[in-house]
Amino acid sequence: MLETSLPLQNIRPSYIREILSAAKSPNMISLAGGLPATELIPMHLFSKAMLSISECSDLFQYGETRGYEPLINEAHKHYAISNNISSMITNGSQQGLDLIARAFLNPGDNVALEAPSYLGALQVLGLSQARIHSVQQTNSGPDIHDLEALFSSQKIKFFYAVPDFHNPTGVCWSLTTRQQVAALCHRYGVTLIEDAPYRELRFSGEPLPLVSSFCEDRAIVLRSFSKIAAPGIRLGMISAPQNVLASMIKVKQASDLHTAIPMQAILMKVLKDPEFTQHIDNVRTAYQTRYQALKQFLSRLHTYGCQISNIEGGMFVWLQLPKIDPLTLAESLLKQGVAVVPSNVFYHSDKNTPPALRLNFTHAKPDKLEAAVAKIERCLQQVI
Amino acid sequence: MLETSLPLQNIRPSYIREILSAAKSPNMISLAGGLPATELIPMHLFSKAMLSISECSDLFQYGETRGYEPLINEAHKHYAISNNISSMITNGSQQGLDLIARAFLNPGDNVALEAPSYLGALQVLGLSQARIHSVQQTNSGPDIHDLEALFSSQKIKFFYAVPDFHNPTGVCWSLTTRQQVAALCHRYGVTLIEDAPYRELRFSGEPLPLVSSFCEDRAIVLRSFSKIAAPGIRLGMISAPQNVLASMIKVKQASDLHTAIPMQAILMKVLKDPEFTQHIDNVRTAYQTRYQALKQFLSRLHTYGCQISNIEGGMFVWLQLPKIDPLTLAESLLKQGVAVVPSNVFYHSDKNTPPALRLNFTHAKPDKLEAAVAKIERCLQQVI
Repeated sequence: MLETSLPLQNIRPSYIREILSAAKSPNMISLAGGLPATELIPMHLFSKAMLSISECSDLFQYGETRGYEPLINEAHKHYAISNNISSMITNGSQQGLDLIARAFLNPGDNVALEAPSYLGALQVLGLSQARIHSVQQTNSGPDIHDLEALFSSQKIKFFYAVPDFHNPTGVCWSLTTRQQVAALCHRYGVTLIEDAPYRELRFSGEPLPLVSSFCEDRAIVLRSFSKIAAPGIRLGMISAPQNVLASMIKVKQASDLHTAIPMQAILMKVLKDPEFTQHIDNVRTAYQTRYQALKQFLSRLHTYGCQISNIEGGMFVWLQLPKIDPLTLAESLLKQGVAVVPSNVFYHSDKNTPPALRLNFTHAKPDKLEAAVAKIERCLQQVI
Repeated sequence: MLETSLPLQNIRPSYIREILSAAKSPNMISLAGGLPATELIPMHLFSKAMLSISECSDLFQYGETRGYEPLINEAHKHYAISNNISSMITNGSQQGLDLIARAFLNPGDNVALEAPSYLGALQVLGLSQARIHSVQQTNSGPDIHDLEALFSSQKIKFFYAVPDFHNPTGVCWSLTTRQQVAALCHRYGVTLIEDAPYRELRFSGEPLPLVSSFCEDRAIVLRSFSKIAAPGIRLGMISAPQNVLASMIKVKQASDLHTAIPMQAILMKVLKDPEFTQHIDNVRTAYQTRYQALKQFLSRLHTYGCQISNIEGGMFVWLQLPKIDPLTLAESLLKQGVAVVPSNVFYHSDKNTPPALRLNFTHAKPDKLEAAVAKIERCLQQVI
């Protein structure tokens, strides 16, 4: 029997993998994954794009590690990225994070995250054997005093953050917090990893600048095309000052040479399509409708001591529970045909994790959301 | 300035990257890369396949880490893979090798390779900080006595090999060597990594069984769709006993969730197409013609003490040189508009590397091959 590597031995078994696997069974209502609505994937745009490359054999030949240049250029235009910043196309933004870890982290290096945290980040940092430090999240972003206390007491290499519509909580950082975090990164020589997969999914309130816009030379930005185009194409983009990107390009070359070029060319055509703006508007409107519906259904759970905070975009609401074990609740719900994710999986340490459920509202339609909430209510009645 | 990780600091600057980059300039004749003929990429099959998925939104949703099941099933049928073996789709076979290293190697673990070696394997093993041991290659595979001496003196975890039409030499292992290597892997508890990207490119002689067919439970097999379909799609497959594959699936999940599903569905349709067999036959015939042409052109270099061994498939010939520095020769050729790869880059250690050039014959057409050989001859005249 082959013995696994030490980093892999450090990865704890993922309960969420079981939930997500169960969530796929046909009669399950899933609020568990971070899945976009399948029926809103712009197949008419993908279809046109595929047709347009059907004679381009050059796109099926080996390509550049950094990615398909016309896509990078189109994305720089779309996101108005400054000329000081270079980008590489990755297999989803998850690979971007993995490349950062492999290019820059040694075992024992200190990395900070907000708690609760994106599960995929916990996995990658686990593989890199980094020391993870958590800073409590407030309604406007990380607790700034705790963050400064941490930065000043330890040599922190990276601060990983999801400032726009955080996964799992949906929190969007305030402008003040954005400026304060950027200032702290400058002061203490911490590199910010700004993960922005949900940024375009704002359906109310005013857009705020990227945190990295206040510390461009100290930041790496991860973008995803999963939420605005489609997740199955596995395309994301990582942006950083050129010398920082260069190290990650080396790792990418050794790890898979480059990302599929036809897929990149297809996405480029989709982004360039005059109908693409309308498509994103449709997605935002649909998600807002689903969020409003879920919020209304959830209001009946107030009697049980449950509450949610308002959100302005993204894919998740964070249902804070009374003092019950969220894992037990999630397991009961799974037996009832509803998949949700309990709060404990989003914490690096199991100690003092507040009871909550992460609920996705973008994949299921309102009637399913209503049925799911009815089941949550029934389960709550049994345990309280 | 962000300090890079220790593994990345271990990666030596890759001269081949410069060559391959220069090889792309429009007037260059490139025999440097391992590129298939662009004009033989079956665009009519890809085009049909893309059209057939243009309404399948499910394929654009998140998928399974292991890959798109209909593609795995089709590939198992195509390669007649036994029921004891499980497979995962990867971003090219390069990623398969990277996943092996990340799932099973700790810094300092011992890994054996034939010398010369595939450059991508040297890069991945460098990143994993493994201790690399080289065994000299003969015309029928690795020197068996040296291999046994190595296996018996050290705890070797993996033996990485390209038994069919080796990169860079084109050597194909004899049946006896295959059986002997499998027996040694069994005896000494070494896991064989059998990398088989060129296996289907046999244009003469009789196909031989995979080495792993003699040690199935001690082997991991890497397959590539780059040479039989297209390299730009970045699709490969890694096959191993189920418990071995499970560890690599965990690493794959953390590193990029899964490989692009539409790309996998498109490849599945291409493999299933009744015209696919004819396509591979066409590729084999074309490559044989180019190889025969190159071989004939190279025969005029015998006078300079150059020689090649006959090959029966693959993409490369290994031009053994008289006692001159192959790097100097490659640099002179680059100035003359011909890109080739000097032998030294294929050796883990710079000591006693025999002078040779790797010449690719699948990308350039015969007239270009002839022009390239004429330039090699001119350069040889100058240095001898």
